[in-house]
Amino acid sequence: MNPDITRERQNATFDVEKLTHILDGGIEKTKRRREIESLVISDPDFQSEDLNFLSRSERYDAAVKKSAQMILKLREYGISDPEEIYCYKSVFRGHHHEALGLHFVMFLPTLYTQCNKQQFKKWVPLAESFKALGTYAQTEMGHGTHLRGLETTATYDPATQEFVMNSPTITSIKWWPGGLGKTSNYAIVLAQLHTQGKCHGLQAFIVPLRSMNTHIPLPGVVVGDIGPKFGFDEVDNGYLKLENVRIPRDHMLMKYAKVEADGTYVKPPSAKLTYGTMVFIRSMIVGEAGHALAKSCTIAIRYSSVRHQSEIRPGEAEPQIMDYQTQQYKLFPLLATAYAYKFVGQYMNQVYHRITGDISQGDFSELPELHALSAGLKAFTTWTASAGIEVCRMACGGHGYSRCSALPDIYVTFVPTCTYEGENTVMMLQTARFLIKSYRQASAGHQLSGIVSYLNESERRLQPQSVSSRPTVVNVNDLASLVEAYKLRAAKLVEMAAKSIQQELQKRVSQEDAWNNSAIDLVRASDAHCHYVVVKLFAAKLGEIGDTGLHSVLSTLALLYALQGIQQHSGDFLQTGLLSVPQLSQVSQRLKELLAQLRPNAVALVDAFDYRDEMLNSVLGRYDGNVYEHMFEWARRSPLNKTEVHESYHKYLKPLQANL
Amino acid sequence: MNPDITRERQNATFDVEKLTHILDGGIEKTKRRREIESLVISDPDFQSEDLNFLSRSERYDAAVKKSAQMILKLREYGISDPEEIYCYKSVFRGHHHEALGLHFVMFLPTLYTQCNKQQFKKWVPLAESFKALGTYAQTEMGHGTHLRGLETTATYDPATQEFVMNSPTITSIKWWPGGLGKTSNYAIVLAQLHTQGKCHGLQAFIVPLRSMNTHIPLPGVVVGDIGPKFGFDEVDNGYLKLENVRIPRDHMLMKYAKVEADGTYVKPPSAKLTYGTMVFIRSMIVGEAGHALAKSCTIAIRYSSVRHQSEIRPGEAEPQIMDYQTQQYKLFPLLATAYAYKFVGQYMNQVYHRITGDISQGDFSELPELHALSAGLKAFTTWTASAGIEVCRMACGGHGYSRCSALPDIYVTFVPTCTYEGENTVMMLQTARFLIKSYRQASAGHQLSGIVSYLNESERRLQPQSVSSRPTVVNVNDLASLVEAYKLRAAKLVEMAAKSIQQELQKRVSQEDAWNNSAIDLVRASDAHCHYVVVKLFAAKLGEIGDTGLHSVLSTLALLYALQGIQQHSGDFLQTGLLSVPQLSQVSQRLKELLAQLRPNAVALVDAFDYRDEMLNSVLGRYDGNVYEHMFEWARRSPLNKTEVHESYHKYLKPLQANL
Repeated sequence: MNPDITRERQNATFDVEKLTHILDGGIEKTKRRREIESLVISDPDFQSEDLNFLSRSERYDAAVKKSAQMILKLREYGISDPEEIYCYKSVFRGHHHEALGLHFVMFLPTLYTQCNKQQFKKWVPLAESFKALGTYAQTEMGHGTHLRGLETTATYDPATQEFVMNSPTITSIKWWPGGLGKTSNYAIVLAQLHTQGKCHGLQAFIVPLRSMNTHIPLPGVVVGDIGPKFGFDEVDNGYLKLENVRIPRDHMLMKYAKVEADGTYVKPPSAKLTYGTMVFIRSMIVGEAGHALAKSCTIAIRYSSVRHQSEIRPGEAEPQIMDYQTQQYKLFPLLATAYAYKFVGQYMNQVYHRITGDISQGDFSELPELHALSAGLKAFTTWTASAGIEVCRMACGGHGYSRCSALPDIYVTFVPTCTYEGENTVMMLQTARFLIKSYRQASAGHQLSGIVSYLNESERRLQPQSVSSRPTVVNVNDLASLVEAYKLRAAKLVEMAAKSIQQELQKRVSQEDAWNNSAIDLVRASDAHCHYVVVKLFAAKLGEIGDTGLHSVLSTLALLYALQGIQQHSGDFLQTGLLSVPQLSQVSQRLKELLAQLRPNAVALVDAFDYRDEMLNSVLGRYDGNVYEHMFEWARRSPLNKTEVHESYHKYLKPLQANL
Repeated sequence: MNPDITRERQNATFDVEKLTHILDGGIEKTKRRREIESLVISDPDFQSEDLNFLSRSERYDAAVKKSAQMILKLREYGISDPEEIYCYKSVFRGHHHEALGLHFVMFLPTLYTQCNKQQFKKWVPLAESFKALGTYAQTEMGHGTHLRGLETTATYDPATQEFVMNSPTITSIKWWPGGLGKTSNYAIVLAQLHTQGKCHGLQAFIVPLRSMNTHIPLPGVVVGDIGPKFGFDEVDNGYLKLENVRIPRDHMLMKYAKVEADGTYVKPPSAKLTYGTMVFIRSMIVGEAGHALAKSCTIAIRYSSVRHQSEIRPGEAEPQIMDYQTQQYKLFPLLATAYAYKFVGQYMNQVYHRITGDISQGDFSELPELHALSAGLKAFTTWTASAGIEVCRMACGGHGYSRCSALPDIYVTFVPTCTYEGENTVMMLQTARFLIKSYRQASAGHQLSGIVSYLNESERRLQPQSVSSRPTVVNVNDLASLVEAYKLRAAKLVEMAAKSIQQELQKRVSQEDAWNNSAIDLVRASDAHCHYVVVKLFAAKLGEIGDTGLHSVLSTLALLYALQGIQQHSGDFLQTGLLSVPQLSQVSQRLKELLAQLRPNAVALVDAFDYRDEMLNSVLGRYDGNVYEHMFEWARRSPLNKTEVHESYHKYLKPLQANL
């Protein structure tokens, strides 16, 4: 054990194990999580060479192997609880993806929820036994977030009672679905349904892609891998071009909408039914943002405690780089953010499960709010976390660039969450739509409830006044007061966005153009709303913490999170008169004090995330702090070191020398 | 040609070709650049498969091959002017690196400048004929930016008149030098010189690594590749462990410091001599930041003009995504930044060449200022450009993640500039040291000259006053007025940092601790200083533009750059009383107008960067806008598509299906 990191742990002022229980949701959950982790880590079948040393084809191969093993192991161990499966998977996947990911996340759930009874009986056993290896083909080369723009067609032919599936244009080729390129023999394809000469919009169809015996693509199916990407090397994101592929009528998923034998289209009872999965996945992503940032902070903070560099005082030994204020300022607010997002993730999960109960009872009343919240928070947290991972990586100096740090893998695996499941800017604008609608309701005298109830107060409290005459309400040492400031900022920015739309409308432009011409303000308002929610939930979490030591350190984190946000957006707080100039100096001063206060607890706070070395897979983030010897060992395994002299010497360099 | 992009070009209000000349520095330079580009692009020897389809070993192989070819070609064509060589290289390298990069950038220049006469006669011909393939081994596993911390030792043995080279610890192993792993047979090694029982600090030594005949590592030399990284796949960044390697006395580079036969150490005449290269490389990086951002903007803006998505007005066709205000707000300020950095790069280059003349005359007076400026601007521009590349990438939706967009390559190739040649935070603090020193001189009554002369005024102008009572000086429509505002902001933030140090000192902490405890403020002050310099230089450039159409569009860009910076740092401008709250609303409004104003010129502005398709190597950034058909073609070449059925199906999936 590196003595620096041992000393860090000795200096901690709280009980790390207790904090781990809080993050897991209870002591029993910690115990079970560790059991599952040990199952995977001690399993010789999951040992493999570092994926970074392999070619793309080898990485894909290794991922398929692991996925196949996992399926057998889960059955062997009888693990069937979704949360436990999720835990098992996140260990064996490491920072990467599983080859059959879409089969589990989209193919199976869609069958479960959108098959009618007969379909269920036929398809679910095929999918659960992996005879049908499936994916979900929605995105097209020219169409992403805007689903109505999808071009793939399913035209019903009553003569044969079949749908004829086509990719009528180059932009309509399905593009990006995971597992589509090489792995899947079936896909659920989203296509525009045409029947009796009319288009009825998007429906889901089960399309066989490859022979179930030979895995060779079927006639009319042009399918393949879309090529290398920024990360996701182990996944065969694919393309799919359909050329008059005929499928039987009962391959359209018919739990809700239907096409009858003669081609008559029957509408689904409610459009809200497909809402739920989306909300669930986005809520999960919020937790993943906390997870990715927590892993990155663990690596950067542990390494900063064993890395010595430069000098603060001349002549003295090189200090730990965590002693530099600039390093603390980079890492500690991100550490606070990681905690914040983990708590927000817990909250979203709880709300989702509560509301799911209501939905299954036919009560959709809370869904719009949750939908708006999950969209905005997904964007808010993934943007911050992505940028934060890169800050952590660069805080590790040169070694952050080495694949042995794991930080490049964490980044390229996480950053796509900014784009998939709803592009972030579009998500922010969806939340803004809800906020503006709520604002208008409040302005019209309706009493709002739920998270947007603060908009009720906006008319009363936010009269325009000059900055200096405004009474100063914020106490920079009091979290509750800061939550209030975030709330008022959000209220003010929603109001400003609404007024911008109003002003545009007065120029006699259309509603739609007024919206687009105010889009910058709308995104800003959503951002402020999400920031308020995060600060509020972090503060609320503190209320649940009884242990004094824990409460103290988490309060420091929460205060740091709130104050750093104020400093970063100080213009907003000054502009809206929520903060005075002298108070802003207090904020800066207080921030520095909080950094110093957190310093002795930094390593313990990342230890509490409880990532085993085998899961972090980072030389820099090792629990024992023995970084350098293991970095040397890792490097020697690099494929380029398999021979002392690379063949290129004989092929190019020696002839060059002879030529000159 | 895609009709959307044709229409964009027709709408432009200025002469693209003229702007290209300005960016190149004159019509003749444009002409010559294009000639050289054509030489490379039309050369069948430089055609190769997309590197993204190759394994790391194949990529390294391809890079060595290209470097060897380039050397022969440059001789064949008689290209020897450094600027023309640089141009030639930047074409054949694309977004990647050359295998022999360090040989040219560090090994040869160090020999030129630090050999004495006899050494020059021996080593330069060996290096110029590539018999000696060299690199520059400075960074160690545990030591980067802080050079004094390097541990490698060179101990003089007068008995044999040799230096004994050693890596005494694991942290002293040389780590990261490009070309060290497999390519080089020589390295210039920086090591602590020990002679006559005393350490005399760092000196440079020529150390043979591999046999010049067989390329096999020599006894005592443990050398290899450090393994895969975030980018730089084609470079063999290496490690080097020296175990009692003996080299003759004349392998120490002795132009300045010397060791005599008996071991007597002779000091060099001046320490400033090694300054120059560092300043030069950092200045180059500023230009590279403009270059990387310009390439990214070209890709994102062209793609945004042909990509249609979602809807603004219901029922109408999907609009070009460049019509969304949020898309404009992402891309146009970055476009303005790319122009700004290109102009700053031109300026730095001119200043460097002017001052180099002075230095060779023994006049070092301007060097400290240039050193401080190049350090800060290197950090300021590389941070912004790196984040900007990612914004461009994500503004392309899902396809930005595909390697066919080229944006992932541009990012991973550029982002290391934040860390190498001086870690950015350290660079910012170096600039801050110069600013604080200048501030103190001004406070003590000295009249400052040069770029920091604004600190002369600080005492007089920046008396604390309340925000509302301050007279409003800024005209948000006038660039000169905005330059002034940036200047005053910088002055105020330098003052605040100086006062923070002062306050710390009053708490009786040491100078060094006071500095560290004010580091956040110091970085902020440097940042404001650099921002001021960039805005000022952009405004100054406008003074050189005679053409009305060009002047108009560049003025719009400059104003956008300045106002967006103010919006992003609105807290600073409000806090320092340089802007009032109503003015801030004006800034927001004006920004939206500028976005709309730039919209018709956006494609033409990236066309003016004049990157040929072969250099951009981006399907999304194609000049003709025919994105989708070429994306499909690219994907089909993916190595995973070489077989219809991947072997993993037979190895894992079929057995899995049989098992369940």
